Amino acid sequence: MSAPTQVPPAPAAPAFADWMRCVQAEVEAALARHLPPAEAIPARLHQAMRYASLNGGKRIRPLLVFAAGELTAAPAERLQIAACAVELIHSYSLVHDDLPAMDDDVLRRGRPTCHVEFDEATALLVGDSLQALAFELLARKDFGEQGRQLEMLRLLARASGSCGMAGGQSIDLEAVGKSLNQPELELMHALKTGALIRAAVLLGALCGAALSTGESAALDRFAKRAGLLFQVVDDILDCTASTATLGKTAGKDAAAEKPTYVSLLGLERAREFADDLRKQALEALAPFGERRQRLVELTGFITQRKF
Amino acid sequence: MSAPTQVPPAPAAPAFADWMRCVQAEVEAALARHLPPAEAIPARLHQAMRYASLNGGKRIRPLLVFAAGELTAAPAERLQIAACAVELIHSYSLVHDDLPAMDDDVLRRGRPTCHVEFDEATALLVGDSLQALAFELLARKDFGEQGRQLEMLRLLARASGSCGMAGGQSIDLEAVGKSLNQPELELMHALKTGALIRAAVLLGALCGAALSTGESAALDRFAKRAGLLFQVVDDILDCTASTATLGKTAGKDAAAEKPTYVSLLGLERAREFADDLRKQALEALAPFGERRQRLVELTGFITQRKF
Repeated sequence: MSAPTQVPPAPAAPAFADWMRCVQAEVEAALARHLPPAEAIPARLHQAMRYASLNGGKRIRPLLVFAAGELTAAPAERLQIAACAVELIHSYSLVHDDLPAMDDDVLRRGRPTCHVEFDEATALLVGDSLQALAFELLARKDFGEQGRQLEMLRLLARASGSCGMAGGQSIDLEAVGKSLNQPELELMHALKTGALIRAAVLLGALCGAALSTGESAALDRFAKRAGLLFQVVDDILDCTASTATLGKTAGKDAAAEKPTYVSLLGLERAREFADDLRKQALEALAPFGERRQRLVELTGFITQRKF
Repeated sequence: MSAPTQVPPAPAAPAFADWMRCVQAEVEAALARHLPPAEAIPARLHQAMRYASLNGGKRIRPLLVFAAGELTAAPAERLQIAACAVELIHSYSLVHDDLPAMDDDVLRRGRPTCHVEFDEATALLVGDSLQALAFELLARKDFGEQGRQLEMLRLLARASGSCGMAGGQSIDLEAVGKSLNQPELELMHALKTGALIRAAVLLGALCGAALSTGESAALDRFAKRAGLLFQVVDDILDCTASTATLGKTAGKDAAAEKPTYVSLLGLERAREFADDLRKQALEALAPFGERRQRLVELTGFITQRKF
């Protein structure tokens, strides 16, 4: 399958590590611009929103938005907005998950969590405000074709809510101390982490030219496998990496008696399962030819990451 | 100003009390339809979302949506969606405000608050999920003109976030034990309650035919005065009504040393201020002729409400 004709012949693409750093820097700068200034009233809330969203994330979801955008030759301005919206949802979820009523964690991205650095009430409002900002940003004027934009809003809202990320978190809470079987664990993760990872991939592609029905289905297969892969690797890291490397408390899933792929399958079989998922994800990308390069590289990065 | 020609001559409008009951019942039914079923996975979260959103609200914001919709002959299907979206945002804010980290309240609409009936973590996720559902609903397919729909989404997101409702709540937290002057108190309330009341009015009008620039400005004046009026009456009720009548804990602002219009002005002058606001709100509606009837009646209801 050849590249769409509207794309001019490009010079050799930058190496993956350079591309990644470039996207991360671009997203960091865009988030800093789109978040309210730290001195705007109410200043304490705005400072806390910036504290929780800037500096230090891996920006996996924005990277997925940009990588998927290559499939449809999506313009960078649009990808930036979609990437920021997804990352704001992710940031809000971390702030709320770390609260004492949920995971009660004190360390995130190597720094005190938002409610430790500020206070619980502020952290609650930070999460609420970041969620609203994500939708405000994605609903902005002059984004592009409006029907498509509304489709993206529905997709992000659904991926975030009770049938997506928040729903997965709820299942996670109920699962503490229980043993789940593999289908139950997969459903939990498909919602908790998978829904937003999938949304990132689909939103990135929706920023550009329309995909065929077959291509959309293939991309959705990739997105679902990649979301699960991300979680399995997360489970492996939670029990093999140190707190210092992770920048968040290691071993806490086991300590909290949460079911994980490692507790279900054992470390070795969890690694094999991750490798199977990686292969399935890459196979799903076959119809996209050379345009899939960044997604292939990013899938490798997700599999091999150390934090 | 005569009624728009597309509206067929209607039979005599129902009395205000009947109209109000009819809108309330319609919104209750629509919310019940749009919320996920109680048995859908994750069932506990969905039960808690329904518990927090159904049965018992005054539905002031939906009433404002419908009343403002009369100004622009807006279709009922669209008003229903906008009304549900605004009410879901309002419901989420109550659930989060009642949490121990915020107002720590145990009674709401005459029943145990969501975190008392379920648990804190679930209440946190209920609020998060209701917010996402509000945007999902307002972004739905086949709503109407898409540019207008995106404008409504931006308006609701901005009214909910750190420069609106959540921001007002943050100022409120910082104000505990401080004495604010009247402009500071007005800013706090303009955000905390005013922003969403204003959004309800503007969203209702946006569901129908376009307003002229002058009409839009007049409606915005009304919306801002009505929002402040609502809060001043709330402050008066907090110190004059009983917990049983209010269905929420009475006297808690004074107990929490929160600045209110009553603590600032005294009860008598607070009542006079409410009456001034009512007059200003009604004056702003003059350009709308007969189409303003429901908003006029609703303003009276807001002023005279006992709970």
